[in-house]
Amino acid sequence: MISYIMMTFNTKLVSSLDKKQTRLCVGLDSRYDKIPEDMRQGSIKDTVFYFNKQIIEATQDLACVYKMNVAFYAGFREEGLEALQLTNEFLHETYPDIPLLADCKNSEMGESVNMIKQEMFDWLGFDCVMVTPWFGFDTVREYLDDEYHGVCVYVHDSNPSASEFQDLELKDGRKVYEVVADHVAKKWNMNGNVFVEAGVTYPDALRKTREIIGEELPLLVAGVGPQGGKVEALQGLFGKNTYRLAVNSSRGIIFAGIGKPDYFSAVRNAAITLAQTIDAVAKQS
Amino acid sequence: MISYIMMTFNTKLVSSLDKKQTRLCVGLDSRYDKIPEDMRQGSIKDTVFYFNKQIIEATQDLACVYKMNVAFYAGFREEGLEALQLTNEFLHETYPDIPLLADCKNSEMGESVNMIKQEMFDWLGFDCVMVTPWFGFDTVREYLDDEYHGVCVYVHDSNPSASEFQDLELKDGRKVYEVVADHVAKKWNMNGNVFVEAGVTYPDALRKTREIIGEELPLLVAGVGPQGGKVEALQGLFGKNTYRLAVNSSRGIIFAGIGKPDYFSAVRNAAITLAQTIDAVAKQS
Repeated sequence: MISYIMMTFNTKLVSSLDKKQTRLCVGLDSRYDKIPEDMRQGSIKDTVFYFNKQIIEATQDLACVYKMNVAFYAGFREEGLEALQLTNEFLHETYPDIPLLADCKNSEMGESVNMIKQEMFDWLGFDCVMVTPWFGFDTVREYLDDEYHGVCVYVHDSNPSASEFQDLELKDGRKVYEVVADHVAKKWNMNGNVFVEAGVTYPDALRKTREIIGEELPLLVAGVGPQGGKVEALQGLFGKNTYRLAVNSSRGIIFAGIGKPDYFSAVRNAAITLAQTIDAVAKQS
Repeated sequence: MISYIMMTFNTKLVSSLDKKQTRLCVGLDSRYDKIPEDMRQGSIKDTVFYFNKQIIEATQDLACVYKMNVAFYAGFREEGLEALQLTNEFLHETYPDIPLLADCKNSEMGESVNMIKQEMFDWLGFDCVMVTPWFGFDTVREYLDDEYHGVCVYVHDSNPSASEFQDLELKDGRKVYEVVADHVAKKWNMNGNVFVEAGVTYPDALRKTREIIGEELPLLVAGVGPQGGKVEALQGLFGKNTYRLAVNSSRGIIFAGIGKPDYFSAVRNAAITLAQTIDAVAKQS
């Protein structure tokens, strides 16, 4: 029995943000060789799946969304990908309301997109892919006829060289990323399954992105924690009811237990602390 | 015994272009469900590997480089990826001088790049990845310390919406892709393992790209054939000795045998015809 109503991807994401109220996206970038030795379960597949299940149990009531960087699994060959598939299957069966994002950056076009759908949605079990906008609308076109699966577009990322091309100044005074944000919000999201990512390490670009996309569209924020982004920079950018924004944290949560007596309590505490910090800023908004 | 001298990736590519003189990049986009039924070998893995081996035997003396769109394999799960891995292993063992390009568009950064290296180079056996420049230099940085493996950057692609952001006009009069071409040629290719891709469906952008990158750097050209690009548009753009350019053809070669009495002769003939058409244009350059 399917116990949940089919919703467009953005509605599912917004519904999760509204319900959990933590604004947390937990990044399950569970790189095998960083998982503590005492958690090893024999094979790479069993170790990564075991680790993920524990992280999920420690964070499932806090995570509005889980994001997996696919490279951290594919780097460990078939076993890594099997662990990823098992993780997503476990999540869909146990916590079907939580959307699952594939951080894959597979910016394909045309018939190749159907292959990405077979890989990311049908095989690995994701609800949404993340793409760069470099090739324009062709990258998202083939995703629009299936509004239950989503596409998140990197509008302005958090990495040091993100500004190299994204911040180039145009003849009309705008910057390149502003045109991208505008196209995503006003042209690409026609079926309610396209939304945007931006980095908190570029507060001005983040502010401008929210201004362009409006209050309704969910905004996934990267760059908090190890990358140096400050939660305070989110003030005023939370969108409708202050729940149209998800802050991603990967290493800062899933590896928070390293060196601690109770690994998964430390993981849970890291998630709670981040959610509280975000909420304090949201309350000032 | 390793029977070949270690060369930087660009040297290996240039050496192959100089030696074969066909300027052909054969795209092994061997989508399982498009392989004729009478070639089926039981499993997806065996069918795709069998098909690829026959294509390779029909084209190995003509192909300066092979390019595989990874999505066409990953779309068929573990079996597709195993067929890809077997294909690359067969190529390395049998024709080690031919560079192998992963058309994966995995534009990762930082430690994720090490995961892509493990996936694409160590596991699947590629010599080179293809990336979008959206995140700037961070996307290629981690590839530079290993000059035997390459990175091909999509400067201006061939798809209909490629112009949406790539052709935006900047304050200084240039277009976005021109800045990318300039950075790749003058800043990123410091160790001889970064080169560029551009589409023949945008002849002006292709011309400008060659002008910016100079005569030495190899240029991979997409968009000939089914996408509507004309070989004539390559005139004058072949670079040093007219052998610094490779034209990719995928479906136009590997599926040329459909409906023909001798499938792989038709494949070979399609490759020869394209090489001759290109050569005729090059001779006018």
